[in-house]
Amino acid sequence: MSDTTQYFLEQSRLPRQWYNIMADFPEPMAPVLHPGTHQPVAPSDLAPLFPDTLIAQEMTAERYVEIPAAVLDIYKMWRPSPLIRARRLEKALDTPARIYFKYEGVSPAGSHKPNTAVAQAYYNAEAGTRRLTTETGAGQWGSSLAFAGSLFGLEVQVFQVKVSYQQKPYRQALMRTYGAECIPSPSNLTNAGRAILAENPDHPGSLGIAISEAVELAAQADDTKYALGSVLNHVMLHQSIIGQEALLQMEMAGDDPDILIGCTGGGSNFAGLVFPFLGEQLRGGRGRRILAVEPAACPTLTQGRFAYDFGDTAHLTPLTKMHTLGSSFTPPGFHAGGLRYHGMGPQVSHALQLGLIEARAYAQTGCFEAAVQFARHEGIVPAPECSHAVKAAIDEALRCKEEGQGQTILFNLSGHGHFDMQAYIDFFDGKLEDREYDAAAAEVALAQLPQLG
Amino acid sequence: MSDTTQYFLEQSRLPRQWYNIMADFPEPMAPVLHPGTHQPVAPSDLAPLFPDTLIAQEMTAERYVEIPAAVLDIYKMWRPSPLIRARRLEKALDTPARIYFKYEGVSPAGSHKPNTAVAQAYYNAEAGTRRLTTETGAGQWGSSLAFAGSLFGLEVQVFQVKVSYQQKPYRQALMRTYGAECIPSPSNLTNAGRAILAENPDHPGSLGIAISEAVELAAQADDTKYALGSVLNHVMLHQSIIGQEALLQMEMAGDDPDILIGCTGGGSNFAGLVFPFLGEQLRGGRGRRILAVEPAACPTLTQGRFAYDFGDTAHLTPLTKMHTLGSSFTPPGFHAGGLRYHGMGPQVSHALQLGLIEARAYAQTGCFEAAVQFARHEGIVPAPECSHAVKAAIDEALRCKEEGQGQTILFNLSGHGHFDMQAYIDFFDGKLEDREYDAAAAEVALAQLPQLG
Repeated sequence: MSDTTQYFLEQSRLPRQWYNIMADFPEPMAPVLHPGTHQPVAPSDLAPLFPDTLIAQEMTAERYVEIPAAVLDIYKMWRPSPLIRARRLEKALDTPARIYFKYEGVSPAGSHKPNTAVAQAYYNAEAGTRRLTTETGAGQWGSSLAFAGSLFGLEVQVFQVKVSYQQKPYRQALMRTYGAECIPSPSNLTNAGRAILAENPDHPGSLGIAISEAVELAAQADDTKYALGSVLNHVMLHQSIIGQEALLQMEMAGDDPDILIGCTGGGSNFAGLVFPFLGEQLRGGRGRRILAVEPAACPTLTQGRFAYDFGDTAHLTPLTKMHTLGSSFTPPGFHAGGLRYHGMGPQVSHALQLGLIEARAYAQTGCFEAAVQFARHEGIVPAPECSHAVKAAIDEALRCKEEGQGQTILFNLSGHGHFDMQAYIDFFDGKLEDREYDAAAAEVALAQLPQLG
Repeated sequence: MSDTTQYFLEQSRLPRQWYNIMADFPEPMAPVLHPGTHQPVAPSDLAPLFPDTLIAQEMTAERYVEIPAAVLDIYKMWRPSPLIRARRLEKALDTPARIYFKYEGVSPAGSHKPNTAVAQAYYNAEAGTRRLTTETGAGQWGSSLAFAGSLFGLEVQVFQVKVSYQQKPYRQALMRTYGAECIPSPSNLTNAGRAILAENPDHPGSLGIAISEAVELAAQADDTKYALGSVLNHVMLHQSIIGQEALLQMEMAGDDPDILIGCTGGGSNFAGLVFPFLGEQLRGGRGRRILAVEPAACPTLTQGRFAYDFGDTAHLTPLTKMHTLGSSFTPPGFHAGGLRYHGMGPQVSHALQLGLIEARAYAQTGCFEAAVQFARHEGIVPAPECSHAVKAAIDEALRCKEEGQGQTILFNLSGHGHFDMQAYIDFFDGKLEDREYDAAAAEVALAQLPQLG
């Protein structure tokens, strides 16, 4: 039997619609609230930040949304992405489980992020936007928007969390290669950044702060809009291409996942893979275990509160109901920069609240052990974020072995670690520490949650 | 019309044979000579370094060689590699030329090198080898052999040219992730290394020196063999999978290249793409222009002498007739580390000598300009080595524009630059210098060519 099984989906079978979980949730989500009035936002409230088309997608309850031809055309630069059965890893683990992964690292920027970056750049270009501002953690999102911007002739300005900016110089180089500007955050370019620096000039930054900076600049100029790489409904919508393809590819494999796994920061790679499968279940299909894996040092889903909160530190965004550690919570500087976010995508939070998914938290050292094991058998070096999903997949496969169960596991390997090798160097040199969750700091941050009437 | 055209070749159509140009050369190549006796080598002379199967492949004149099932199975982790039409680049250049590229960066190690690394690791594992030693420049080859070794349970020891070792720390991290050991060369582990360091403790290293170190260690131990990432006939053979696929993919595209382009260091990515096409021509097919592109600072094909020379600095290897700048020539430390070799694959040299191919040399700054232009339109960041091929493809497309000719160009984009981003940073910061070819140093080195009877 072949040790390599890659399920190639022909480009002619590339899905032409995004899937929207909103259509199938058994209970509606809590509305998004205006930060001033605490009333549900109207589309016009979001107009300073996003073009109308994206606002409509943020709010739509349609089950399927057509992917524009120009976006499909760019998707075809790397999509369909491969679905691979990890037979060598299965053998090494001596598990009766079947382990599959969907590999999103084949995109030009190296992760799943271009799935939404291209869509957002397209709709903005259509609407006449000249410049996009955004935040980035590890840099996966920033480089993806830079890539997308270069294709549509948009200027892109990226605020990168300072600790990641310092850890990952090659990511900035990638953004520059695509023609974007990359600024360490907090910066002196915005009121939000200056306020943080005044208190602490050495602040390591956080996604919440970087979002404030990007939003502030976008709100100031008519020709400038803001783009977010996760969290929002329209981002989850665009990422559904991952799961839409995986449904077809699992069918090609003649198999069906019992367990779906993704790592969660804002939730978009997780939602991208699992929501199309969850939708099937909610429409009467079979039930599956769905597992969100997060870092122990920033355990939004496993330790956070389900409450209305701001998406950013300076409180410029609308209020969304989500699992949060408080918008002023700054997680320690561990290596999975893309998972260092105080909140969670409201759709993912809603799914957890409804008991449709499970959540689990892992410390980083064990994740890197799993990632190295994976690389030595499957060849691909996972991004530190994805190492959380790899660890969970291996743990579930070992549980199957213990229980003598031949279950099918599918996880999202949402990006490669080529730009994160310093993390691997630290791991090999024994310099990687497991960072503690600062529960006391989260308590302080949670005490500042907005008080709603 | 779609701007994205990727020619997917189904895995069921993956070629099952490597192609050997030896069968079709109109004149035989000069024999390989023993370094001591200057007589043609016998297979047994090479036995300390290579397993019998690879020695047989080095010498065979069979046109096609079966790819072992285990190697094919690993190829399927990333092969067939995509053939992509660069329509966005064509539009930006406003050229009537059609530009295609074969993209080898989809392999786990990020370049074409695993095509031969996997084959060499397989044959060594079959023959009972426990450990492989090798050299690497930029690190593409070292990380590829590390990857292949991890799949076959072989220890891998990599001597990396010191200037590249220092420029590219993430490459070492990749080799360590795959479980290999990476040593900066010249090192104190070998007589060859110690002799160089005694003369110059700050020697930047060269591929010739690193080869000497790896060969020396392999020759000392029965369970240790040597693996070379380019130059040799069996490496060119394994790389032919690239061109074998491209022949099928160009057929799918309903097009046929007028010009084939590859960058050349030792010649393996170039040969891998072009030899299957050249073979067709030599068997009576249509003629095509075939263009080898090398760095102006190490211009082996355009400025070197066609003569018998050693493959390494310490004169441990057999003598091969090739284009050479002299085995003691140390090129300056420019960024395309994989192209810093004093010699050239004998098959590529033979092809140039017979007038079957052309050669051209470029300075690095222009190559990086071309690479950035390519990345902004096609999304992929080329390795510094491949930027030479990109530049040539763009120049040819501009020539077509000037001449009003709609020619078809196919080049090999043999790897991505994710581990070479310092080169891009230097380029953007204006710190990249064009290094001069040191003709006087080459004269000195060429004066030391072995005197044959």
